Amino acid sequence: MIDVTLLGTAGMVPLKNRWLTSLYLYEGGRAVLVDCGEGTQIALSEAGCRLKPIDTICLTHFHADHVAGIAGLLLSMGNAGRTEDVTVIGPPGIASILQCLLVIAAPPFRVIAVEADDSGEEVLRSGNLSIRPFPVKHVVPCFGYQFTLPRHPKFLPEKAEALGIPRKVWKLLQAGESLKLGDRVIRPEEVSGPERRGLKLVYSTDTRPVPILSEMGREADLMILEGQYEDDTKLAKAKEWGHMTFPEAARLARNAGAKELWLTHFSQALKHPEDYADNAASIFPNTVVGRDGMHKTLNFTEEK
Amino acid sequence: MIDVTLLGTAGMVPLKNRWLTSLYLYEGGRAVLVDCGEGTQIALSEAGCRLKPIDTICLTHFHADHVAGIAGLLLSMGNAGRTEDVTVIGPPGIASILQCLLVIAAPPFRVIAVEADDSGEEVLRSGNLSIRPFPVKHVVPCFGYQFTLPRHPKFLPEKAEALGIPRKVWKLLQAGESLKLGDRVIRPEEVSGPERRGLKLVYSTDTRPVPILSEMGREADLMILEGQYEDDTKLAKAKEWGHMTFPEAARLARNAGAKELWLTHFSQALKHPEDYADNAASIFPNTVVGRDGMHKTLNFTEEK
Repeated sequence: MIDVTLLGTAGMVPLKNRWLTSLYLYEGGRAVLVDCGEGTQIALSEAGCRLKPIDTICLTHFHADHVAGIAGLLLSMGNAGRTEDVTVIGPPGIASILQCLLVIAAPPFRVIAVEADDSGEEVLRSGNLSIRPFPVKHVVPCFGYQFTLPRHPKFLPEKAEALGIPRKVWKLLQAGESLKLGDRVIRPEEVSGPERRGLKLVYSTDTRPVPILSEMGREADLMILEGQYEDDTKLAKAKEWGHMTFPEAARLARNAGAKELWLTHFSQALKHPEDYADNAASIFPNTVVGRDGMHKTLNFTEEK
Repeated sequence: MIDVTLLGTAGMVPLKNRWLTSLYLYEGGRAVLVDCGEGTQIALSEAGCRLKPIDTICLTHFHADHVAGIAGLLLSMGNAGRTEDVTVIGPPGIASILQCLLVIAAPPFRVIAVEADDSGEEVLRSGNLSIRPFPVKHVVPCFGYQFTLPRHPKFLPEKAEALGIPRKVWKLLQAGESLKLGDRVIRPEEVSGPERRGLKLVYSTDTRPVPILSEMGREADLMILEGQYEDDTKLAKAKEWGHMTFPEAARLARNAGAKELWLTHFSQALKHPEDYADNAASIFPNTVVGRDGMHKTLNFTEEK
């Protein structure tokens, strides 16, 4: 399972009652944070998300509203007792940007910079969670992120029995390890069912609606996309500033065949984004207009 | 008059209900901000302080909790319509630190760096407000700030009449300008009373109690000092980390002969600083334990 918390829903400017957009994913004792604007460490605290397990921070792009909180967060992670390395993934140039931002902070752990590239391939794993950045289209270089959690195939006791494997070593095979039985090596695939569907989540803000978003979000359990503007009357602005409208995000989720869509990164002018939910839901019914601190656990679905 | 707003009272870490310590001074249509930690732009908005008039930002030192909000603030000042230069005063190295912090922000105005030095002399005026940084004692180079607003001497109509100056040109002399009357140059001093007391405010956090604080705060209308720890049982910690206790701050205000003391920059562990007011007030009675958004107008006092 992946625990998903949307920490904030503001775009550009942190407001009194709306934190800047960022995401906290928790899986298997480790956490990944996507973006870290001014105030994100307070949003984490308000949402009850622990700082210490964060081992990876993914940055979409280098605008202050997505990055300016990183020095304070890393210091607070140190105060929370973290001593292990933290990896920060971001667009090319991340190493020098990080070096600059950390002139005012010296956390008690190494901070490792990893550059995202345009390949759409895995750049890193946080525990079992696979992280794939992919390029989107903003006014500066910007990346979306796909997170996937693979699921082990089902262990089939009847196959293990047929091969004469003693019960006491089944747990090794169940954990995905091979074992030696006399002269034979038994691989887990020999006692497992077919590949099973894992979990997939796609996150992207600060972009025009580019086809790669639907490709990376193919049958995703959850897509979290920006809805900077409520409707297509704001299309000229959206194009000028490299953002999306509610209907544009909904069409991407529909094209992807995703299960659910959360909207976030609302313009400061959009006081009550929930009033415009239908602008997206009429296109992609399972749309949720994001709220700060919104939380969901994504679980593996049972096979039919 | 100087409008004084204490924007936050937290030290080190911004809390859900306590912004990081910073100060907003408003005088004659211009504003000065002292320190700008993560979230200060939201604290300004909550306290009803306008961003656009800020023409000077004074930084005490380069720790994240005093500086990390500057990129976001400058962007929001641009959004609020500011196009005029902004000056940032800070410890030596301020120019390169600013250049680093602004890699994630490009405000639509010039940002000018000014280095504070150890002289205790005026480095800048914001309108009529004179700004004097002075060195204090923290774990890194750190400055306190003295702000003074001079007061014009009283205009004496009887002297103007005695000199035969026509009433219609009095306002020039009242505004401090000289004027030519026939062959004579009349200087404002000739028609004015003695020098009058102006206003003085001293602000300092992140320091041990050094004598310069009382010197710069001599007879100040207001001293705003840190009270990181509530009592002297925390003296070892205060010495280790370069901070002050409530009694230490109170002794400085007493030694300075100041009119009033505000305490701020409270440790995260100090949940209810107001419970410890007596630890300072028993030494310096006119002590106020700071609260976020606290406001006061300092007015010129009438001469006896």
